[in-house]
Amino acid sequence: MAVRKFSEKRLTAEVLHRIRNTKNPRLKQVMASFIRHLHAFVREVKPSHEEWEKGIGFLIETGKWCSDRRNEFILLSDTQGVSMLVDAINYKAGAGATESTVLGPFHRLNAPEYPLGANIAKRASDGVPCLVSGTVKDAKGRPIAGARLDVWEAGADGFYDSQKGKAMNLRGVFRADARGRFHFRCVRPEYYPVPHDGPAGKLLTATGRHPMRPPHLHFWITAKGYKPLITHLFVKGGKYLDSDAVFGVKPELIVDFKKSKGGVATATYDFVLMKEKK
Amino acid sequence: MAVRKFSEKRLTAEVLHRIRNTKNPRLKQVMASFIRHLHAFVREVKPSHEEWEKGIGFLIETGKWCSDRRNEFILLSDTQGVSMLVDAINYKAGAGATESTVLGPFHRLNAPEYPLGANIAKRASDGVPCLVSGTVKDAKGRPIAGARLDVWEAGADGFYDSQKGKAMNLRGVFRADARGRFHFRCVRPEYYPVPHDGPAGKLLTATGRHPMRPPHLHFWITAKGYKPLITHLFVKGGKYLDSDAVFGVKPELIVDFKKSKGGVATATYDFVLMKEKK
Repeated sequence: MAVRKFSEKRLTAEVLHRIRNTKNPRLKQVMASFIRHLHAFVREVKPSHEEWEKGIGFLIETGKWCSDRRNEFILLSDTQGVSMLVDAINYKAGAGATESTVLGPFHRLNAPEYPLGANIAKRASDGVPCLVSGTVKDAKGRPIAGARLDVWEAGADGFYDSQKGKAMNLRGVFRADARGRFHFRCVRPEYYPVPHDGPAGKLLTATGRHPMRPPHLHFWITAKGYKPLITHLFVKGGKYLDSDAVFGVKPELIVDFKKSKGGVATATYDFVLMKEKK
Repeated sequence: MAVRKFSEKRLTAEVLHRIRNTKNPRLKQVMASFIRHLHAFVREVKPSHEEWEKGIGFLIETGKWCSDRRNEFILLSDTQGVSMLVDAINYKAGAGATESTVLGPFHRLNAPEYPLGANIAKRASDGVPCLVSGTVKDAKGRPIAGARLDVWEAGADGFYDSQKGKAMNLRGVFRADARGRFHFRCVRPEYYPVPHDGPAGKLLTATGRHPMRPPHLHFWITAKGYKPLITHLFVKGGKYLDSDAVFGVKPELIVDFKKSKGGVATATYDFVLMKEKK
């Protein structure tokens, strides 16, 4: 049997040739692209054996930090701008439609459903009282009655409820009324760091970056016949708007959280959903 | 404060800009290349949110399989041809010098040192008795007296000792004599699968590949003043020589393991080390 001479140059082609019998065409496409880009990266940086081991060690360490309550690989994806890229690829806001941004790791299923006007902040210590209101409409300005708004945010201490325990707080589900209107109470969003005591955080520090996110309030808005909208509202004038650790800021999503005389911050936003493609 | 409009096209440049203050120039170079290639991969395959989550889930699962006795990320690197690429980048065998190949995950430090002629196989059930001999020389044919040969192999059952427990077997360290000669006893190498019950193995199956490695005997040869040589000897005529799961075969490393009349397989090889660069 003739075994071909090994060739550094030809190695990538050989690995690609080896997956030629992949049954799932999408997996074949993804893996071929992955192999080409991974090999190109290695050819470009020419890691020593020790450097490659260090890279592998970083992945092992990242794996160790993953648990039911923490996804360190998503955090890496977020902080290296990949999650935002995946979002941009998948959600193209049409003319007039509201822009999307990253989901982030802190959404929880089964958040409590509240009547309009309810307060998602259970404790006085959660932050500065805030009233958020607005509408959910389609691109032609027609209200989307009954649109479902899933909202969540961190407290003034910079933590989401799930980072502290199992109890639900600072999150809730609302339904827009017949005219597409909604309003609820919460706390004014404050800036906070993404979890940065693990490998993703160490990488931020080593590359001269901070782990901070500008103040924001999460929305996941759904309605039958419309494309789900995952987005934030950012606080105008908030810190880190120009250096969000996860690259999530879009100027169209920055809103004024004005303070009323009673010390309550108020913000309003009109969301526009896109029709679901049939 | 002006926040720039988000641009899918400009996102990669923005992530690269964000690491501009990285102090370690090598880390900056590696991360810049990593970010560019990772983003290029994502732009090319355009993963849906669900697909990206599946990819992240694969990494988490790979992390879960890692332990002191198993490195699933190295296994991925090996089976996707990356380890062999890193080796090829770092070890360029000069004229006449012996070719290198992958280290693999089964080398152990502190293997027992034996006198020349000793048998590294402790049990009769380890496989077909085998005698391996040869020389260690420099590129000018001069013997390298006292060269250290660290050898290891799987048994006939396809497992290395470390896959079964802590006891050392089928591995040992020898010293070449004053004329650069060595000889030791072992078992004839047999083909075996890389560990394939985890994510790396699932990926092999999903991409239409087998997990087998052709029969081989590992060597790590060191001597003062010479570049360490990590390599295998492959068995001529062995199965899977043309489809090694880790792409490690080089024809220059294939040798005849002849059977003598007494049923002992014999192989001989003359290793040539390169001078260490000063």
